[in-house]
Amino acid sequence: MSIYLQDIPLNEALARFDNALKKASLSGVLGEETVELHEHLVGRVTAKPVWARISSPHYHAAAMDGFALRAENVAGAMPTAPVILTVGQQAAYVDTGDPLPLWANAVVPIENVEALDKDGQITEDARRPHSIRLRAALPPWSHVRPMGEDIVATQLVLPSGHVLRPVDLGAIAAAGHDRVVVSRKPRVAILPTGTELIEIGQPVEAGKIIEFNSLVLAAQVNQWGGEAVRYPISPDEYALIRQRVREAAEKSDLILLNAGSSAGSEDFSAAVVQELGELLVHGVAVRPGHPVILGMIDRQDGSRCPIIGVPGYPVSAALTGEIFIEPLLARWLGRPPHKPIEIEAKITRKLTSPPGDDDYVRVVAGRVGDQLLVAPLSRGAGVITSLVRSDGIVVLPRGIQGIEAGSRVKVRLYRQPEELNQTIFAIGSHDISLDLLAQYLSTYGRRLVSANVGSQGGLVALRRGETHLAGCHLLDAQTGVYNLAAVQQYLPDQKVRILGWVNRVQGLLVARGNPKNIKGLQDLVREDVIFTNRQRGAGTRILLDYQLSLLGISPAQIRGYGQEEYTHLAVAAAIASGRADCGLGIAAAAVALDLEFIPLFEEEYDLIIPSVYTEDDLLQPLFTLAQDEDFRKAVAQLPGYETSRMGRWIL
Amino acid sequence: MSIYLQDIPLNEALARFDNALKKASLSGVLGEETVELHEHLVGRVTAKPVWARISSPHYHAAAMDGFALRAENVAGAMPTAPVILTVGQQAAYVDTGDPLPLWANAVVPIENVEALDKDGQITEDARRPHSIRLRAALPPWSHVRPMGEDIVATQLVLPSGHVLRPVDLGAIAAAGHDRVVVSRKPRVAILPTGTELIEIGQPVEAGKIIEFNSLVLAAQVNQWGGEAVRYPISPDEYALIRQRVREAAEKSDLILLNAGSSAGSEDFSAAVVQELGELLVHGVAVRPGHPVILGMIDRQDGSRCPIIGVPGYPVSAALTGEIFIEPLLARWLGRPPHKPIEIEAKITRKLTSPPGDDDYVRVVAGRVGDQLLVAPLSRGAGVITSLVRSDGIVVLPRGIQGIEAGSRVKVRLYRQPEELNQTIFAIGSHDISLDLLAQYLSTYGRRLVSANVGSQGGLVALRRGETHLAGCHLLDAQTGVYNLAAVQQYLPDQKVRILGWVNRVQGLLVARGNPKNIKGLQDLVREDVIFTNRQRGAGTRILLDYQLSLLGISPAQIRGYGQEEYTHLAVAAAIASGRADCGLGIAAAAVALDLEFIPLFEEEYDLIIPSVYTEDDLLQPLFTLAQDEDFRKAVAQLPGYETSRMGRWIL
Repeated sequence: MSIYLQDIPLNEALARFDNALKKASLSGVLGEETVELHEHLVGRVTAKPVWARISSPHYHAAAMDGFALRAENVAGAMPTAPVILTVGQQAAYVDTGDPLPLWANAVVPIENVEALDKDGQITEDARRPHSIRLRAALPPWSHVRPMGEDIVATQLVLPSGHVLRPVDLGAIAAAGHDRVVVSRKPRVAILPTGTELIEIGQPVEAGKIIEFNSLVLAAQVNQWGGEAVRYPISPDEYALIRQRVREAAEKSDLILLNAGSSAGSEDFSAAVVQELGELLVHGVAVRPGHPVILGMIDRQDGSRCPIIGVPGYPVSAALTGEIFIEPLLARWLGRPPHKPIEIEAKITRKLTSPPGDDDYVRVVAGRVGDQLLVAPLSRGAGVITSLVRSDGIVVLPRGIQGIEAGSRVKVRLYRQPEELNQTIFAIGSHDISLDLLAQYLSTYGRRLVSANVGSQGGLVALRRGETHLAGCHLLDAQTGVYNLAAVQQYLPDQKVRILGWVNRVQGLLVARGNPKNIKGLQDLVREDVIFTNRQRGAGTRILLDYQLSLLGISPAQIRGYGQEEYTHLAVAAAIASGRADCGLGIAAAAVALDLEFIPLFEEEYDLIIPSVYTEDDLLQPLFTLAQDEDFRKAVAQLPGYETSRMGRWIL
Repeated sequence: MSIYLQDIPLNEALARFDNALKKASLSGVLGEETVELHEHLVGRVTAKPVWARISSPHYHAAAMDGFALRAENVAGAMPTAPVILTVGQQAAYVDTGDPLPLWANAVVPIENVEALDKDGQITEDARRPHSIRLRAALPPWSHVRPMGEDIVATQLVLPSGHVLRPVDLGAIAAAGHDRVVVSRKPRVAILPTGTELIEIGQPVEAGKIIEFNSLVLAAQVNQWGGEAVRYPISPDEYALIRQRVREAAEKSDLILLNAGSSAGSEDFSAAVVQELGELLVHGVAVRPGHPVILGMIDRQDGSRCPIIGVPGYPVSAALTGEIFIEPLLARWLGRPPHKPIEIEAKITRKLTSPPGDDDYVRVVAGRVGDQLLVAPLSRGAGVITSLVRSDGIVVLPRGIQGIEAGSRVKVRLYRQPEELNQTIFAIGSHDISLDLLAQYLSTYGRRLVSANVGSQGGLVALRRGETHLAGCHLLDAQTGVYNLAAVQQYLPDQKVRILGWVNRVQGLLVARGNPKNIKGLQDLVREDVIFTNRQRGAGTRILLDYQLSLLGISPAQIRGYGQEEYTHLAVAAAIASGRADCGLGIAAAAVALDLEFIPLFEEEYDLIIPSVYTEDDLLQPLFTLAQDEDFRKAVAQLPGYETSRMGRWIL
């Protein structure tokens, strides 16, 4: 590798790419095609303005069932001085949509005339009378759709660069066209590479990674108006990757070369681009996303095919789509690039950021009281659920080392700002029942957004007025009572209520078959039993210490007491991998890793809610659900869950 | 027809329909299907929650290239007190993505260690050294993606009723699924009826109407997640329509029976519904849209197929889609119905409304100064371009007879509110060059929205501060000078400027071949020449009167002087239809109706702009374009246009 361009700023990277595209005459609309009018044109982009070929209506049309006439002839008609017109000479019956006779300039609706027979008597045959009697005048062009009312021939119907909607198709047809000229869809080849990758649906094993970036990228490309072609996974073999890139360049307008996240793949990508064309950028100062590659591949005919080396981590890959691919497709289609809705909000947590990078932080957003708040989600580039859950992105630009909790930030929203008013913020200890709650609340038009910061973190958020509710399971070691003492300690001056939620069983997680025959905490003192613990301050740790003290067991007697894990799942993983024999946790963690579970204690997980929100319309569906049989049953079916206290006000 | 339920309120109509759907067990999700994960699932709706089958990562994975180790073993490492670990015993080389060995709990990146050979000397073979030297400690789990970092097995990945986006597909795959359960697409049969209808692409003639409602409805249905099937046009034959409805009911979840706009069709529809099932509603008090039919068709197996009789006028048809069809599809798919963004704005014109109806008024919207304004578009049910141009809908509810200009109204927006800040409002006399201007401005990210209220109307809008600019061509009969006098008269106290725009030729429109050999205004006094005029106050009428006075011709000498038409096109139509021999108008009107044009006078069409906006960033692209060669050339190519004054400040 002769060029390794490490982490240049985003603007400069885009400018280099732009420049290369211009040189290759690839900076505008790629091409156009004429397509017959059909319903699948929605979303396509007009490549030429649509000018009306005919007027619409293309003739003066009756707008009502009635009689065509000349308005002058009934100018003086009044209730006391009716005017009679002879049908066939001064009036003619017309149905709605019929052409107006040339001599006529108005239509009187059938219900506004008296139909007369040749003796001047009222007749039943309202559509074929001898004459009609009118008792009111009407202005010229009444009840006529004049030619060109909608569209005048030669008029502009749609500009070019317009993204077609259903009504546009109608207007194009009305203007006399049976086809429309649209930008052709850019063909985008997506090449996943990496020896560690396996196709979706293959059995997983340690060290193998399910390849789904090509799926996400293809869906993005199609959604943005391109036509994605997914190639099979290429293992990390230089010659093979080179061959596929070379082939793809001949057939495509753009290549997305998606390196696996393991080492080596990325270097292959850069080297291939280097060999087959020009490596413009290798490494962009955005996080997540660093190892983005931008380049051009030379085709046999001397033209060039742009290539983007997409990083392997799924969040990086998806954001690369938004930052690099969407604007390029927009340009090739001749439509404006997507412009995110930007709002200002207060951030609930401190963030640090590498000063050299534009840092894209995924956040959830909601309105609590009169504050618009955003809470950062997991920042790992591998955490695709952070994009699934995210309501928007906060960009911490280069040069900023971080921001304090409570700072005002600009948020690029993925949702309508209106939706944030229907958002219930739940910051605190997470429980799986909140996932179910979110599911049920959605049918009431509410969005539950939760951030897992632990029970104590939730109480802090309540103190700051930054959440509608906080999940909490804090045992008071003195009284053995849950949550009450913690609320009094953390929120002495705030009016909050405690809504009883679930009792969940904590117990010992052991390997399938319980090989060490462990039955309870008393077994932890056995010489042949290795325990693994939760970190200090965790609810489960507090529970363990409390129960050990009741049994008179000292931590020093337990092998592995000092070995701390940070989540229920990490404890389960330690046991599943054989590092420890048991640990304290919830049943769901055992189920997740196919362990056995020895139930020991029930703990109380409640929702702490400021009194001001208990009356708020926003939260009413939550209180309804707490009493709803269906919902309670669904929660009670979770392993180790019990709901008898659900919906009861503890405080 | 035994039941003819005329114009019941929308809520009641929906309630009846709802009730019938419930009885037929059609008020929830219609069904589900399991679909393999692929990129075309975007937009489909989950029918079941997606729970994680596996964790992601499904093993503890190295997040960097480096050495796996136990953090405890390097706890004391410092620059002055390095720690050495033997590779193979206390450390193992791992690539990014590799599984962490069971005994390890952290990874040190390769660039943070000194690789040593067996003599303790630094070695080049960084990945296969004998031992490594560290000069800093690191916390447990550093540079490890712990199992379940992204997704924990059994966790909720997506709720049901979720509209799938690209990243969701990735999350589903990461959670160990290769397929997903989505709501099946409701099958919607669209039956256009009407003897007057012709298919798109057929030659048009008076009395024939191009059938494009089925195209618009099908595009809407597909966009909202249904699967539309378009049937061929049925002429107004009762037995045929009955037969097609009966057939469609067996194959479809919903029938849209689109009556032609002519009389008769609509009655057929109601009678067919009545005969084949149950007519629930015939006539809803919404405008446009009145003749909506709601009913149920009985299938052979005893189940029922809902049917909606969609009115024939295109605006009514499209709005029927939004009001009745979209929410029904949403319910059948299990997703929330679309909720329009609502903003408050000031309406620029007085509106009257039938007090018995919910009146759906199409509007354009923009921000002028610090006011959010909406201007009503044409209210004709036949004017599909009013939907194409519309930025939103103002609903005047039942019971309201109208609203005054300047009232605050609620607007259901079709666009992002942000787009309104990029909108240039042009209220005044319309000119075709403004269509071109709109086209060019869009490439600068500006939207030009124009409402044609005539020159004087534009000056009034300027006086009220309700437009960024106004097109104007008002001749001062005393001086023969355009626009200056009118501006001084209408806007004596306002700082405005006049931007020279186009000179356009006015002349006589005559039939092809000029059979009466008309050469100028002096021919209007000939006995064999019938003229047709514009209405009093029109710029063209003022021009005519001025020119006649110069020639010393009196109106009384002209046959047809009293025959007034309201648009250039209406004049052209009168000549095309043989009602008159000539009229005064612009060349474009002659081109539109294939007439001959005798150029006579140039008139000056200018843009009046408040001084405050001449410095505004919003309008700068307009001034740029006024000097742009490309744009000026495009305008100059319009028939009868000349652009030498374009961009010059007249005042």
